Amino acid sequence: MQSQGFSMTHEKPGERSRSPNVKRLKLQVRFILECDKLKRVKRRTRLLDRSRRENSAEHSWHLALMALLLSEHASPAKLDLPKVIQMLLIHDLVEIEVGDLFLYDESIQREKAVQERRAAANFFSMLPSDQCRKLQSLWEEFETRRTPEARFAAALDRFQPLLHNYYTEGAAWRRHGVTSNQVLQVNRRISEGSPVIWEFARKLIHDSIRKGYLPEPKGK
Amino acid sequence: MQSQGFSMTHEKPGERSRSPNVKRLKLQVRFILECDKLKRVKRRTRLLDRSRRENSAEHSWHLALMALLLSEHASPAKLDLPKVIQMLLIHDLVEIEVGDLFLYDESIQREKAVQERRAAANFFSMLPSDQCRKLQSLWEEFETRRTPEARFAAALDRFQPLLHNYYTEGAAWRRHGVTSNQVLQVNRRISEGSPVIWEFARKLIHDSIRKGYLPEPKGK
Repeated sequence: MQSQGFSMTHEKPGERSRSPNVKRLKLQVRFILECDKLKRVKRRTRLLDRSRRENSAEHSWHLALMALLLSEHASPAKLDLPKVIQMLLIHDLVEIEVGDLFLYDESIQREKAVQERRAAANFFSMLPSDQCRKLQSLWEEFETRRTPEARFAAALDRFQPLLHNYYTEGAAWRRHGVTSNQVLQVNRRISEGSPVIWEFARKLIHDSIRKGYLPEPKGK
Repeated sequence: MQSQGFSMTHEKPGERSRSPNVKRLKLQVRFILECDKLKRVKRRTRLLDRSRRENSAEHSWHLALMALLLSEHASPAKLDLPKVIQMLLIHDLVEIEVGDLFLYDESIQREKAVQERRAAANFFSMLPSDQCRKLQSLWEEFETRRTPEARFAAALDRFQPLLHNYYTEGAAWRRHGVTSNQVLQVNRRISEGSPVIWEFARKLIHDSIRKGYLPEPKGK
């Protein structure tokens, strides 16, 4: 990783932190400073007023807020909401190393998993080892979608850009020549996390076709 | 509030949602779409690479992530971390109505509380009533700092811009003529939420004076 090399320069030469608390705090602060770079990772999705592309930090905030508001629609409804929110806060941090890989670019989806796994291990290793393990484990859980929490988090990660595309008249879809079949395929995963939200999303997709934001599906 | 008027236009004329779930989901989605506007509220703080000003949505994400990583330094250490994170996710939403009011602009601090309280009541009222009450209560708790969770959240809300100022050689302080006394005064609140973080922050402030990011304090 290219580090901006944030050093704790407020420490006087020769002075050492004897407190384990302060040692941990310094590692944590260095990590927090590195995380600022996520604000510079641009996604394909545009803001709802179409003024600019969304970045991955504000996208992560939006998803965490959605989890807080929409968890009642998860399936099963009883899930560990704090864990969902924590997953969403950290799920895109690997992009600081590998960038945002476009959902609809199928050619890179195979490479993506390998690259991101390596990036996660590298990036989280800046933290004290217990926190490194915790974030690595949260990230893995999200990535493999092996729990209801991860499936709900992943559903929101699909639903939010779908909302943005619908309410910008398909801005990112059009710009990148995305097809209806791709949109249906990629977003079907929402049903694993929330049938209610998937039903809502499906209507948005069909309405997008009707309104011409997306081309008519092939084979129809 | 000026609404962009997101209508659920995918619903066919004459069709009504009979499911209470779907009715709630529509209100929640409309609220979530409005929240996108927080990505356009600019703060005085610059990103660490100084490329642009930070917006309040990505700032909120950064704070929630900090809470996840730094809660061990809170005082008392045992606190309700999910609540801290939820507070931080929603604490700036009122800015969609009133904008970001600069921490160091003393002339508007008195007005700020009144304006923001009105904005919160208005903004959260878009949600189903139980969620409106929940968010209002979280926001009030944060604002009045009456619990350890709120005091820790407020400490992070001070600590993050301090970090950004320190690591951009006082970019926002210099631009707005902020004094050392103001910085000490405004950030002292960090000690209420975390003495360990305050000790760290205090060193950053004194080092900023030493390095000339901040002027020498008056009366010294």
